[in-house]
Amino acid sequence: MKLFTDKMAAEKLEDRTSERLHARILEISKIGRTENEGAKRMGYSEEESQAKHKVIEWMQEIGMQVRKDGAGNVFGTYKGADSSKVFMAGSHLDTVPDGGHFDGAAGVLTALEIVTLWHEAGYKPKYDFEVVIFSDEEGSRFSSGLTGSRAFMGMIEETELDKYRDPDGQTFDEVISNIGSDRQQFLTAEGPSKQIAMYAEIHIEQAKQLEQKDLPVGIVSGIAGATRTKITFRGAAGHAGSTPMTERKDALVKASEFISTLPEVAKGISETAVATVGKMNVSPGGVNVIPGEVELVVDARDINEDSQSQLIKAVADHANDVVNNSDITVETDLTTRILPIPVDTEVIRNMEASFKRHDLLPIHLPSGAGHDAMSIGTQFPITMLFVRSIQGISHNPEEFTHIEDLTKAVKVLKDFFENL
Amino acid sequence: MKLFTDKMAAEKLEDRTSERLHARILEISKIGRTENEGAKRMGYSEEESQAKHKVIEWMQEIGMQVRKDGAGNVFGTYKGADSSKVFMAGSHLDTVPDGGHFDGAAGVLTALEIVTLWHEAGYKPKYDFEVVIFSDEEGSRFSSGLTGSRAFMGMIEETELDKYRDPDGQTFDEVISNIGSDRQQFLTAEGPSKQIAMYAEIHIEQAKQLEQKDLPVGIVSGIAGATRTKITFRGAAGHAGSTPMTERKDALVKASEFISTLPEVAKGISETAVATVGKMNVSPGGVNVIPGEVELVVDARDINEDSQSQLIKAVADHANDVVNNSDITVETDLTTRILPIPVDTEVIRNMEASFKRHDLLPIHLPSGAGHDAMSIGTQFPITMLFVRSIQGISHNPEEFTHIEDLTKAVKVLKDFFENL
Repeated sequence: MKLFTDKMAAEKLEDRTSERLHARILEISKIGRTENEGAKRMGYSEEESQAKHKVIEWMQEIGMQVRKDGAGNVFGTYKGADSSKVFMAGSHLDTVPDGGHFDGAAGVLTALEIVTLWHEAGYKPKYDFEVVIFSDEEGSRFSSGLTGSRAFMGMIEETELDKYRDPDGQTFDEVISNIGSDRQQFLTAEGPSKQIAMYAEIHIEQAKQLEQKDLPVGIVSGIAGATRTKITFRGAAGHAGSTPMTERKDALVKASEFISTLPEVAKGISETAVATVGKMNVSPGGVNVIPGEVELVVDARDINEDSQSQLIKAVADHANDVVNNSDITVETDLTTRILPIPVDTEVIRNMEASFKRHDLLPIHLPSGAGHDAMSIGTQFPITMLFVRSIQGISHNPEEFTHIEDLTKAVKVLKDFFENL
Repeated sequence: MKLFTDKMAAEKLEDRTSERLHARILEISKIGRTENEGAKRMGYSEEESQAKHKVIEWMQEIGMQVRKDGAGNVFGTYKGADSSKVFMAGSHLDTVPDGGHFDGAAGVLTALEIVTLWHEAGYKPKYDFEVVIFSDEEGSRFSSGLTGSRAFMGMIEETELDKYRDPDGQTFDEVISNIGSDRQQFLTAEGPSKQIAMYAEIHIEQAKQLEQKDLPVGIVSGIAGATRTKITFRGAAGHAGSTPMTERKDALVKASEFISTLPEVAKGISETAVATVGKMNVSPGGVNVIPGEVELVVDARDINEDSQSQLIKAVADHANDVVNNSDITVETDLTTRILPIPVDTEVIRNMEASFKRHDLLPIHLPSGAGHDAMSIGTQFPITMLFVRSIQGISHNPEEFTHIEDLTKAVKVLKDFFENL
């Protein structure tokens, strides 16, 4: 298996944009490089700061105005024809503990590349254009997520900060002071001083659909909202030897019936619905004891609010159906529901036009994972492009996306903004 | 919920045997009594020794010859007409950490009661009759089981002893020295100096079949041998949000299909076959990660060697069938196989005759759990009687069996030996 540096050395670089993206991804990849050539740039770490400063230098080279907010988010502004509204594009530079060099960085550097091309061409966009670097998107610092973009949108309550502890046991206040901010500045970071006419984010797909269809770029049709339903099946524990099969109240047998048929439930809702059991607890857990209780969590998502609602109900109904006419009881508890962020159909149509102008098939993909665009999408129009991920690998040093695919995404998104 | 003492106070005592069993169970129950009136007499503990000494006193009161072997097993001999062979009956006096007062003690005290009745009547059995108290049947001391009876039968290898550590970290040698023995005496404890013509054990059922059929006593048709098959399902981990349902290799979905249909596999083998998954490990175990690997253990048992073999094969075949035509692979590994101990059909016929002479329905029950009779049964004929357990509860302070049911078992087993 080739490591990142070797893979990068073998990349085909067709033009100035490819060369610049290649050089900049390499440059950022050196910050927090791990033993196996992965990336470790935790949110609010020294490494995340260094990466931000490197990008700030590039912003300033082309005369962009740079500011930071209390959440550590960085905004580089390129003047447009009209300053009453703003276009925004970007992503994040933090990574998971042993992540790759494309998740996040790809979005920041492609946004910067669009501005760089405009700067070289002397082109002025319709509105001021801001390249944004959101802090701590991965949430590795506080087991949260989208920290910077949610702070920017005023979506974080102070009580949430009180619960934060980082892997070293540091409180939120201790961590935020490291970046020269404090709780108050963080909470009032909420930013959009003017209307965001469009937020765009280029992100690696982190799945294999584009690769399987042999396409470089896809249009995100919506960002799924995650829901979590805790489900507890209760029967009766008993001796695995002395309890005949006909006398059992085996909670695991019923829970298994539920899990094995859950995929059909999700498929029955929509093509974009997903439902997963990733974690379960079998009690009492002895190898020779019939399980008396099984607790599991269903992570269910869809990209539309209606179908998400249907999915939540279908999951609970399914649990109840499974135990119907049995000695097992079930309890379901919806513990988390994040509303999905749809992408406006007109925005998708405009993006499709840009794809066609670049001879690209405008495939639609749902985003099952969360991205900073979710935060902005709660109030402003958004668009997202997914770029092909090799083997769908992500959050791993082996994560890789070809530079020429990123270059195609730059061209399409630039076209999109030029024609808005 | 009434505690043990209150329940005992309410018992109906119909004759001298009932009175004696009642008094003796109460007496033994005081040794290692726990807070909630359960029993704690770990193998090779001071409490187990005290209980043995109490029974030795009762043996000596009726002139029985008492000896101990290097494994701490106690044998009280009552002279029969012929000393060339021996009849044996008994069980154990150790308990699980918060167990009840019938598991084990019932077998020892009913065996002693048979001799007591013979002594009172001046009756001599065909052969010498030995009441035996095996040490550490529960195996709580070293996470083993049937320690005394296996040592007696020469079934314990020295290498097994090297691995033993008790809950306080004591080695086998340290523990065995507490009872005035040592490793060498333990390993040469193997006892049967003469042929055992019959070993009998009365034990509480620890299940609900007799209660459900409203019967006091049942004939054990065989002791199931436990088998353990470790089964590993392997798929591919993935993001629970970004991987469409159609692109998944979810190891847990397949494992669940296996578990939910496993009861049918066991039922297809025989009425006595059982198969249980009590423990499983889902990896990587994140709530938002598709499980890439599931490891589980199937505990499968049956009372005949042939059907046990069929069951082992059916479990492995089932695992392979489930993953057939899928992207999931499976590996099965039979890690443990204890052969079942059947009860000879002629022995069962003789026991049925004794049941009929006492107007009892001679119901047959398999023993799913292991008992000291398993060790003796590897070389000598055995018989076991199960006595009704209230609600099937066992290994728990609420374990209870009515004295009048034990009395019935005494009468039947005494009749059985008198007619052998």
